[in-house]
Amino acid sequence: MNIAVLGTGIVAQTLASALATRGHAVAIGTRDPAATLARTAKGSFGQPGMSEWAAAHPAVRVATFADAAAGAEVVVNATSGSASLAALTAAGAANLDGKIVLDISNPLDFSKGFPPSLSVANTDSLGEQIQRAFPGARVVKTLNTVSAHLMVDPNQLADGAHDMFVCGDDPGAREQVAGWLQAWFGWTHIVDLGDITNARGTEAYLLLWTRLYGRLGTATFNVHVVR
Amino acid sequence: MNIAVLGTGIVAQTLASALATRGHAVAIGTRDPAATLARTAKGSFGQPGMSEWAAAHPAVRVATFADAAAGAEVVVNATSGSASLAALTAAGAANLDGKIVLDISNPLDFSKGFPPSLSVANTDSLGEQIQRAFPGARVVKTLNTVSAHLMVDPNQLADGAHDMFVCGDDPGAREQVAGWLQAWFGWTHIVDLGDITNARGTEAYLLLWTRLYGRLGTATFNVHVVR
Repeated sequence: MNIAVLGTGIVAQTLASALATRGHAVAIGTRDPAATLARTAKGSFGQPGMSEWAAAHPAVRVATFADAAAGAEVVVNATSGSASLAALTAAGAANLDGKIVLDISNPLDFSKGFPPSLSVANTDSLGEQIQRAFPGARVVKTLNTVSAHLMVDPNQLADGAHDMFVCGDDPGAREQVAGWLQAWFGWTHIVDLGDITNARGTEAYLLLWTRLYGRLGTATFNVHVVR
Repeated sequence: MNIAVLGTGIVAQTLASALATRGHAVAIGTRDPAATLARTAKGSFGQPGMSEWAAAHPAVRVATFADAAAGAEVVVNATSGSASLAALTAAGAANLDGKIVLDISNPLDFSKGFPPSLSVANTDSLGEQIQRAFPGARVVKTLNTVSAHLMVDPNQLADGAHDMFVCGDDPGAREQVAGWLQAWFGWTHIVDLGDITNARGTEAYLLLWTRLYGRLGTATFNVHVVR
């Protein structure tokens, strides 16, 4: 498939690399490709700068948001929450129309340090804001509840016996995404929550996730819904 | 032990009954005991009115908030979130001083129907509000992430292989509560999150819990943190 991954952080790098390894045609979308490719400083999680990363991943094209999205069958929003609406606007509504937009972002506000609060919460969510801003896109919120290395390899933890949530207004898109999560990364425990307002639940869960992360001292964890 | 359970809803009834069955001296605290004992209408979850319930549980004393708290070694706040601060104020700061207050409440706002939003969230929590209002109390937030019947019998689900969170500013109080949860109800998987600000996480989780409840069609579920 032709897949656009918007963003250049640890989540975007991890997803783009995993998808390219599986044979997909991946384009990373960024505001200014030349500036991105010149970036040598390591990222905030110690990941390589995009200059080094791009050299190590020659199969992944680095393009503008709009260029990456234009040729894509599916668009993955892996930008930080505070940049997501601007990135998708730069990608262009026409380049999202009718497409599934996999929204992985979280509206984390680190302005007061760790643990973060959310910049939108409780009675609204970033997933809903994105769906409202791009009514022609089929937004499916998922993967936002685990760290990047678990997103692409759930079976490294308890043989995959932990849960991934999907939500979005289009039932067919949710089903399609569940199939991709399994085919791409091996997710077998997928909970379909329903419409995009459920993003209020999965984004708010980050208020617990970040505190569990602080307490457990590892990001290699996830919840399993026992029933 | 002498235990005060503040509240008369399904959570208070379930806890008071379970604790009395285990031989504790339990007093239910309510605003107006005479009015409570005259209540014949069933509750919103189909539970018996307090008139019928009290007749079936003669060992449980029904008293004013203050009377119940005065004689208690531990005070359990099982009132609804919107009533918690008023109930604890009626119980009296002097009757809470130095005691462990087990806070089970959630700040659920059903004014716009189901699923509810939270009346306090993200940058504050009801647990913190209670601790700030009663600085002499040793508030421990727990049990708010499962339904009443699971609180008192976790082993009915997956032999107890799912997690209960505790948080509060006093490490000794958290440890004591973890011991009580095990001794009283059989909880064996207890995650000590740390200080009371972690209530932001466990209360916000209700935004996911209520949606899982709607989707799964049962309240007999809980999360297990897989690591």
